[in-house]
Amino acid sequence: MDYEAVLEEVAAFVRPLVGRGQVARYIPALACVDANAFGIAVADVDGGVYGVGDWQTPFSVQSISKAFSLALVLAEGGDMIWERVGTEPSGNPFNSLVQLEYENGIPRNPFINAGALVVTDRLQTLTGDAGAATLELMRAESGNRDVRFDLEVAASEGDNGDRNAALAYFMASYGNLDNDVPTVLDHYFRQCSIEMNCRDLALAGGFLARHGLRADGTRLLPRREAKQVNAVMLTCGTYDAAGDFAYRVGLPGKSGVGGGIVAVVPGRCTICVWSPALDPRGNSVAGVAALDHFTSLTGLSVF
Amino acid sequence: MDYEAVLEEVAAFVRPLVGRGQVARYIPALACVDANAFGIAVADVDGGVYGVGDWQTPFSVQSISKAFSLALVLAEGGDMIWERVGTEPSGNPFNSLVQLEYENGIPRNPFINAGALVVTDRLQTLTGDAGAATLELMRAESGNRDVRFDLEVAASEGDNGDRNAALAYFMASYGNLDNDVPTVLDHYFRQCSIEMNCRDLALAGGFLARHGLRADGTRLLPRREAKQVNAVMLTCGTYDAAGDFAYRVGLPGKSGVGGGIVAVVPGRCTICVWSPALDPRGNSVAGVAALDHFTSLTGLSVF
Amino acid sequence: MDYEAVLEEVAAFVRPLVGRGQVARYIPALACVDANAFGIAVADVDGGVYGVGDWQTPFSVQSISKAFSLALVLAEGGDMIWERVGTEPSGNPFNSLVQLEYENGIPRNPFINAGALVVTDRLQTLTGDAGAATLELMRAESGNRDVRFDLEVAASEGDNGDRNAALAYFMASYGNLDNDVPTVLDHYFRQCSIEMNCRDLALAGGFLARHGLRADGTRLLPRREAKQVNAVMLTCGTYDAAGDFAYRVGLPGKSGVGGGIVAVVPGRCTICVWSPALDPRGNSVAGVAALDHFTSLTGLSVF
Amino acid sequence: MDYEAVLEEVAAFVRPLVGRGQVARYIPALACVDANAFGIAVADVDGGVYGVGDWQTPFSVQSISKAFSLALVLAEGGDMIWERVGTEPSGNPFNSLVQLEYENGIPRNPFINAGALVVTDRLQTLTGDAGAATLELMRAESGNRDVRFDLEVAASEGDNGDRNAALAYFMASYGNLDNDVPTVLDHYFRQCSIEMNCRDLALAGGFLARHGLRADGTRLLPRREAKQVNAVMLTCGTYDAAGDFAYRVGLPGKSGVGGGIVAVVPGRCTICVWSPALDPRGNSVAGVAALDHFTSLTGLSVF
Repeated sequence: MDYEAVLEEVAAFVRPLVGRGQVARYIPALACVDANAFGIAVADVDGGVYGVGDWQTPFSVQSISKAFSLALVLAEGGDMIWERVGTEPSGNPFNSLVQLEYENGIPRNPFINAGALVVTDRLQTLTGDAGAATLELMRAESGNRDVRFDLEVAASEGDNGDRNAALAYFMASYGNLDNDVPTVLDHYFRQCSIEMNCRDLALAGGFLARHGLRADGTRLLPRREAKQVNAVMLTCGTYDAAGDFAYRVGLPGKSGVGGGIVAVVPGRCTICVWSPALDPRGNSVAGVAALDHFTSLTGLSVF
Repeated sequence: MDYEAVLEEVAAFVRPLVGRGQVARYIPALACVDANAFGIAVADVDGGVYGVGDWQTPFSVQSISKAFSLALVLAEGGDMIWERVGTEPSGNPFNSLVQLEYENGIPRNPFINAGALVVTDRLQTLTGDAGAATLELMRAESGNRDVRFDLEVAASEGDNGDRNAALAYFMASYGNLDNDVPTVLDHYFRQCSIEMNCRDLALAGGFLARHGLRADGTRLLPRREAKQVNAVMLTCGTYDAAGDFAYRVGLPGKSGVGGGIVAVVPGRCTICVWSPALDPRGNSVAGVAALDHFTSLTGLSVF
Repeated sequence: MDYEAVLEEVAAFVRPLVGRGQVARYIPALACVDANAFGIAVADVDGGVYGVGDWQTPFSVQSISKAFSLALVLAEGGDMIWERVGTEPSGNPFNSLVQLEYENGIPRNPFINAGALVVTDRLQTLTGDAGAATLELMRAESGNRDVRFDLEVAASEGDNGDRNAALAYFMASYGNLDNDVPTVLDHYFRQCSIEMNCRDLALAGGFLARHGLRADGTRLLPRREAKQVNAVMLTCGTYDAAGDFAYRVGLPGKSGVGGGIVAVVPGRCTICVWSPALDPRGNSVAGVAALDHFTSLTGLSVF
Repeated sequence: MDYEAVLEEVAAFVRPLVGRGQVARYIPALACVDANAFGIAVADVDGGVYGVGDWQTPFSVQSISKAFSLALVLAEGGDMIWERVGTEPSGNPFNSLVQLEYENGIPRNPFINAGALVVTDRLQTLTGDAGAATLELMRAESGNRDVRFDLEVAASEGDNGDRNAALAYFMASYGNLDNDVPTVLDHYFRQCSIEMNCRDLALAGGFLARHGLRADGTRLLPRREAKQVNAVMLTCGTYDAAGDFAYRVGLPGKSGVGGGIVAVVPGRCTICVWSPALDPRGNSVAGVAALDHFTSLTGLSVF
């Protein structure tokens, strides 16, 4: 497939949508990003990588990091994590605390904030440094040793992190955290602050398209666990819009409030799109539209 | 692929699980079904159909009919239905009424009972006889003119249908039903009462594997709408276990409390499995396990 | 106490508030009431009755009737009713259905609609004609044989009663109704449609100030049950504003969307105020203010 | 009234219930209290104080302190507090976090934990030392300078305070705390750890029976605010059992998990009862029964 031609057509198609929506404003470092940026890259399973637009401009990965820390936890610790976090969509506009209370401190899935905190806690226990472990995976898979934390973003998240602190203490009250709350929060915020561009993220997510194989051909995840990560991305990866994303795009995907989305065509390729202006549910407006058009053009939906 | 050999292996593998769980007991006609029945059939997109076990024994399709009435509504009325029902997983163990109240009478998706009532209401408006329209689709696609309503089951559902009546009146209070409540309930109960066997259901669901094409080669649904039905089946088709089903099986699927499940491998085949004993979330224990093993053996997951 | 002078002062004080708020518009018969009406009456325990303003103009009692049907159920059937309905405030802006689902069909208290339907169902079982029993109590205690149903209002309630039908069917699904749903709804709507004026309602509620004794000196309720009705009125009698009503007025009270409120000073008197314009929580704006000022002037709060 | 004779009769009546229920076990210092203790004291508005049983044994006041810190905030800062905390019963078995999320960080009332944290925060702002201010009020009104914090209990609460930390951070995320979270928690835990006996607590609560006047005749609260505290105690003072308490006892009351309850007969007296074994809703079994019997014997209910 001529990915470059497809990406050009996608970029032209979504151009009128770029800048529509709202850039995340809850921390200063995100609020000053250019709302009109747009980049998209595809990394195929054979190592080829293609991109258009601002595909080499770094942005804050935010929640996209959750798919990677989940993969690491499954790789290092196996599926015991599923006793502490579920695999069901949250399906709740009043998410997080309400559901957490109904379900006794077990988050619905690893991609809502509460679930990601549990995953971070487990990764901290398994590795002794959850933030560094996630960063190292990103660097190794993208082949870019310059991928780094944005510590200003991490600090700013901490300063505005009362709700995440509430979630963490709440789960601690149910005994669902092993490490102390400030440590878990610190690693969680650092992992969310990782800066990468579309190219590097598409490459880094390649193991999800290769059924668990890393860029160097060694195995990160058993095939079964790689399928699980994709399944959870499809049902839970785009906040309270997962059903809509499945319906429009039809691919496993994980979005972040930095405006990035990583999507996977199992066996074929990984796509990363970035455009900072978000819809009310926190997903990139132009990013979702680009993936929708990409699957229409290529017929690469899983459905 | 040698489907018969695969199905034999699947049947042998799940044999120890057959009968585990509880047969649905809320109406007498369902309660007396043999808990130890097990059948499975595959219909490939070319018209071949294969089966093992009790694959030719009729059972009550129940909620599986919801995927068919949704397809009819999309075929007849286009996607206006999505203004009256969402596409998001309900994600709520206290489902239905709670969520309906938060969201002002708009059900989360077409496969929870409230959403299916809206779909039935719309189908009634479009066709004048929602029950007959669904039955006719089943007959035409399966090629079996003997497929029929079980009117005893339908009457029994009505006698035990206070909660569905509550849902319907509640949506009516938000103006989200066009027909009068007793009519909608009547057609809903009739459609759920359809009796079919695995063979006929696998054939009937073939259009979902053929991207919208009927058995006779004419188009029931545009490709885009066929993809939508599959996406909604994956994210919402198995009650509050859709995430778990996606994670284990990795296929679009729709289950019913009669113990049946229809699953789709887009572009390849449709599978129907039946075993009446249910897990606590209302899905067939042996049925889910069979589909899980089927995808493991064949690698036919979408992920 | 010179009640007439007090009532004159109260009426003058609240005059600027009369007409503020919104008249109930969900049925035509209520929507056309004069928003600027205001009347107040006091019936002391010795039989004296005093009033000012529109105290002799009949209005629709609506939910005020719930206190009377509850009293009748306690009088006829004793406190078995408390196994089918609670005594706790609902405290939930998303009331009724949500709470009912969490609590398995047991309404939180007898004054939310769900609870009143259970009380009506019980009264129907006890008397064979719940509506007539409530009407007869109103006539006997007020001494006015002309008190009557407004059957146009009752019919109109029925036409707009989808939500009450939903509540009733929902409770039926939990086995918490003995009579069939349409019968219960019919008696419920009739009882709500009773037309009375402030004078008659203040007299009719006199047994709550006389610790259970009727106007003719016979006992309607044991002292303990009379205290219970007053307690439930205080904690649950004014929709989701019971805490605010207790805090401002400090008396047991029951309001209706017709704009009436009956309040009780145990051992002293019963007050009925009426002014049709409602606050967003469904209580008469001028009515609550009048009772607030009445207790300030007289010191007759229970606190 | 011969309070001593009444109290003797009450004590004899409830004797069979003493020890029924469960002593609070969430912190060690509370778990080792003698479940069979029982004491009751009455302080009349003229300064007389009467008691029977273990009425001079100190216990942990826990949530009873919330009525006193609320009174101080109203005394020092007026009713601006009602912009940050409501006056409605929580009415929710899944209390605290759920409701807090629905209502954007405004707790329903000052006696649920979230509300008490807001009150403590405000008292801290007003006085610079919320814990000390509450302690000083207790000492002054009881006339016992030996009333003290139990710092072991306070520390133990802190060690087990993850859920309160979650509540506090959650409200901070809505901007509803002025002081930093650890400071607010520290003062909150200290205030809850105050040790007093029935005699001292009955005396300390005397201002609520005297419409706001302190033991020395000076005014702590305007009459209107004193009435407000009593009203909120009646509708919200006994956790999710306020309706039941109003219905059975019919007095404003505030309970604590240490097993104490303070109840008020406005204009007459204040009662404090203590027995550590609790019902499932967190109120003293023998304590509630004693107050129920007390009001039956004396007719001193507000209803």
